[in-house]
Amino acid sequence: MDYQKILEDIYKEIIPFAKTGKQADYIPALAKVNPDQFGMCLETVSGEVFPFMQADTRFSIQSITKVFALAMCLSLKGENLWKRVGKEPSGTAFNSLVQLEVEKGIPRNPFINAGAIVLADILLTELDDPENEYLAFVRSLCGNDSVGYNMEVAFSEREKGYLNAAIANMLKYHGTIDNDIEDVLMFYFKMCSVEMNCRELARAFLSFTNSRVFYHSGYRLSSSQIKRMNAVMQTCGFYDEAGEFSYLVGLPGKSGVGGGIVAIYPMRYAVAVWSPRLNSKGNSVMGIKALELLTTATQESIF
Amino acid sequence: MDYQKILEDIYKEIIPFAKTGKQADYIPALAKVNPDQFGMCLETVSGEVFPFMQADTRFSIQSITKVFALAMCLSLKGENLWKRVGKEPSGTAFNSLVQLEVEKGIPRNPFINAGAIVLADILLTELDDPENEYLAFVRSLCGNDSVGYNMEVAFSEREKGYLNAAIANMLKYHGTIDNDIEDVLMFYFKMCSVEMNCRELARAFLSFTNSRVFYHSGYRLSSSQIKRMNAVMQTCGFYDEAGEFSYLVGLPGKSGVGGGIVAIYPMRYAVAVWSPRLNSKGNSVMGIKALELLTTATQESIF
Amino acid sequence: MDYQKILEDIYKEIIPFAKTGKQADYIPALAKVNPDQFGMCLETVSGEVFPFMQADTRFSIQSITKVFALAMCLSLKGENLWKRVGKEPSGTAFNSLVQLEVEKGIPRNPFINAGAIVLADILLTELDDPENEYLAFVRSLCGNDSVGYNMEVAFSEREKGYLNAAIANMLKYHGTIDNDIEDVLMFYFKMCSVEMNCRELARAFLSFTNSRVFYHSGYRLSSSQIKRMNAVMQTCGFYDEAGEFSYLVGLPGKSGVGGGIVAIYPMRYAVAVWSPRLNSKGNSVMGIKALELLTTATQESIF
Amino acid sequence: MDYQKILEDIYKEIIPFAKTGKQADYIPALAKVNPDQFGMCLETVSGEVFPFMQADTRFSIQSITKVFALAMCLSLKGENLWKRVGKEPSGTAFNSLVQLEVEKGIPRNPFINAGAIVLADILLTELDDPENEYLAFVRSLCGNDSVGYNMEVAFSEREKGYLNAAIANMLKYHGTIDNDIEDVLMFYFKMCSVEMNCRELARAFLSFTNSRVFYHSGYRLSSSQIKRMNAVMQTCGFYDEAGEFSYLVGLPGKSGVGGGIVAIYPMRYAVAVWSPRLNSKGNSVMGIKALELLTTATQESIF
Repeated sequence: MDYQKILEDIYKEIIPFAKTGKQADYIPALAKVNPDQFGMCLETVSGEVFPFMQADTRFSIQSITKVFALAMCLSLKGENLWKRVGKEPSGTAFNSLVQLEVEKGIPRNPFINAGAIVLADILLTELDDPENEYLAFVRSLCGNDSVGYNMEVAFSEREKGYLNAAIANMLKYHGTIDNDIEDVLMFYFKMCSVEMNCRELARAFLSFTNSRVFYHSGYRLSSSQIKRMNAVMQTCGFYDEAGEFSYLVGLPGKSGVGGGIVAIYPMRYAVAVWSPRLNSKGNSVMGIKALELLTTATQESIF
Repeated sequence: MDYQKILEDIYKEIIPFAKTGKQADYIPALAKVNPDQFGMCLETVSGEVFPFMQADTRFSIQSITKVFALAMCLSLKGENLWKRVGKEPSGTAFNSLVQLEVEKGIPRNPFINAGAIVLADILLTELDDPENEYLAFVRSLCGNDSVGYNMEVAFSEREKGYLNAAIANMLKYHGTIDNDIEDVLMFYFKMCSVEMNCRELARAFLSFTNSRVFYHSGYRLSSSQIKRMNAVMQTCGFYDEAGEFSYLVGLPGKSGVGGGIVAIYPMRYAVAVWSPRLNSKGNSVMGIKALELLTTATQESIF
Repeated sequence: MDYQKILEDIYKEIIPFAKTGKQADYIPALAKVNPDQFGMCLETVSGEVFPFMQADTRFSIQSITKVFALAMCLSLKGENLWKRVGKEPSGTAFNSLVQLEVEKGIPRNPFINAGAIVLADILLTELDDPENEYLAFVRSLCGNDSVGYNMEVAFSEREKGYLNAAIANMLKYHGTIDNDIEDVLMFYFKMCSVEMNCRELARAFLSFTNSRVFYHSGYRLSSSQIKRMNAVMQTCGFYDEAGEFSYLVGLPGKSGVGGGIVAIYPMRYAVAVWSPRLNSKGNSVMGIKALELLTTATQESIF
Repeated sequence: MDYQKILEDIYKEIIPFAKTGKQADYIPALAKVNPDQFGMCLETVSGEVFPFMQADTRFSIQSITKVFALAMCLSLKGENLWKRVGKEPSGTAFNSLVQLEVEKGIPRNPFINAGAIVLADILLTELDDPENEYLAFVRSLCGNDSVGYNMEVAFSEREKGYLNAAIANMLKYHGTIDNDIEDVLMFYFKMCSVEMNCRELARAFLSFTNSRVFYHSGYRLSSSQIKRMNAVMQTCGFYDEAGEFSYLVGLPGKSGVGGGIVAIYPMRYAVAVWSPRLNSKGNSVMGIKALELLTTATQESIF
């Protein structure tokens, strides 16, 4: 499969959408990003790498970080993890408090904000040095020690993060989180502030293709656990657009409000794409188009 | 892969759950079924068939019928279908009216009751002789012309079908269905009343494994459309247990309240399992267990 | 108090609102009413009557009928009535199915449609000849035997009554109603189709001012029961505008989608007003204005 | 009317309920109150005072404080107040976040917690010295300068106040509150921590009977504004038991989780009752019983 050629062809086809959508602008650090950027990178399990355009430009990975956090928590807690967070698609917007109230403080899944805040709480409890250990884990996954937090992003997210603070307070009220609310929120926002590029994300997600032993920075996942992580990505990875993504692209994956999307073709490849303009559901317009065309062109999807 | 042996081993392991759960009893015809039955059948794309225990006992397929109805509607209407029904997981129970009210009469997906009632309405409008044409389609899929409706089941479902009648009235109120409410409901209940056995269901779903041209009784689906149908099954096929099924089994599929479940391993096989006792979400207890053990034993899942 | 003069002054002040709002048009019989009509009538407990403008033009009383139905049911069942219907304000639109689903089929109060459908069911069960007995009761209240149903209205309401049919099916599903759904719906729509004018409505509601013994057509209510009926009107009589009406007018009352509103000043008077143009909450624009000005001018309210 | 005798008779009748219900125990200061206390005081507009049992024992007035806060805000902002808070009954529990999310940050009414937090925000903005000015206002209303905050209560409420913090964050997210979240919450909890006894509360609420000019500590309310405050108490004063209270008692009023209830008979009297044991809706069991018997015995209600 000539992926380099395919990526080029895809790009030509999605140019008409280059100005569609609007980047996230709720904090200055995201608002000031040039929205007219596009990067993509596909890495196969045999080690071939297909970078395209701005594949080496770092951006805020935001919610994509939730996959790394889930991997650590699953490694640490095993199936007990699911006592504190569900694994069903939410059917509502990613930040809905309604569901949390109705379901007595158990978030629907680890990829809505409430769920990821619970992951942050678990890591705070389980790790001696959460900030450094989390970074070490992500660095091991992508093989690049220069990956790090963007503290300016983290602090300005906290400053404007009223909705997430509301969620954290609700979780605390229901006893779902153990640590101090401020500590949990700051760690959550730090994890979201990690900056990576498409090349690094594709490499990091290669570990979730189940093609080799998962052992990073001391954390192990079994083949079965990796499959299950993919299942959660498949049903819950795109907020209330999970069905649409599954329908159009047919691969498990995870998106972030910074405009990044990573998808996995189990046993074959991982692919990351980035473009800051978002659709109304908060997913990258060009990113989704590119992945839809990729699986259409290659006829490679999980179905 | 020695599937026959695997099915036997699975059965030994799930015997402890043989008395767990309760069969559907909201209509006499379902209530009087002997709950202590179990059948299973796996058919591979190369034509090998692995029937097990009561693989030849017919039962009420109930919601599994929605997959056939979706296939016909997708063939008839193409992507326009999605103007009248969504494809996102519902996040709530299969019969929720709340979502329908909040979302102004557009059902979340074709596998919740509201969505399937819309499919029934479309077929009533599009087909000259809906009852016979639907049956012809199902018979073509499973290759058995003796498959038919159980009118006693259909009528007693209608008699007790207050919730579905409420849903149909809501759909009519919002203009989502065109035909007479009674006609739509009766056709919906007839489709649900179809009786098949595991052998027939496995055969019928083999068409959705994407391993050969889909052309049945005049209806075509492209390879891409079949993939997309699998995507909808994956995210929406198990009511509010879709995430759980995806997590445990890792295959697209569809369950019915009669105790049947069918799952698809794309390009490889289709497998049907049946046991009437249901869990609290309305899915067969032994059925889910059996499929979980199948993908664990074979390491064959889409992830 | 010179009520005739006050009514005249009020009318001058509300003329600017004469073209505001839109009459109900969901059935032909309501749609074809001339929207530019206005009538009002106040009757005191001492028997003085103050008719104004079209006080003698009959119109469809619609939801105002629910007060009469409640009176009959309360007389028949006493406090047991509240086992099947609540008495709390709904906080949502009058036809919300959400609340009914969440609260397992017990309508919030007798003045939302679901609640009044339960009243219709009770009357069907309790009365030998519901249609004639209901009419006899209403005629006794207003002292005019020419008051009757408008069958054209009732039948066209039923024809378009999908939402109410959805509600009735939900109630049946939850076991809140006993009779055949169609029978209940038709009786409900007949009760709503009663036509009265402001003079008749003021007279009828005089019975609820608690100024004399309530004994009509064989039905008795104690003074305490009448007070409680007023309490329910106060908190639930205006759909999700109950708080606003209480705030602006400060009297218990009930509105109908035909443009009528009746209000009660306990121990003093009953007042009916009618004008077909409705606000977004389904209450008569000029009607609410007129009553607000009435209690402002007279300083007569319950607070 | 021999109110003293009536209060005595009432007490005899409600003794059977003396052990029913449970006091609020979410903070130590409330949990440690002796639950077996009962006080009552009625003061007429002509100045007669009828204290009964522990009418002089102070307790935490909690949500009753919202009436005082509303009075100040209404005096300060007039009708503009209602741009930031509604006046419809909520139909759900007092602390529901669902409604706040659905209605985009505008609380349903000033007596649910969200609404009262908005009042706290308004006072913080409008007053130079909110804490002292609020206290001065309350002291003027009840005529006793020894009334004050209980800081221990306020601080422990804040410590456990996760749900209210969630609400405040939601309000901030929607732009409904202007001040720092912590400042708003602390002021809100301080207002709730005010301690008064039944004698003082009856006196304070006498000002809302509309029997004399309202001018306290520089704040004026017109007769019409007082009527409207009573209307809001009537429809919204008892969380999701407003309809029940209106039905049983037939007077506007306000309850608090400390076990106090105050009710108003316009132009006649104000009555306060206190007993710490609460029903499932958070209202004093003996308090509601006592008021129901009072209006039944005297036949004095607004209806």
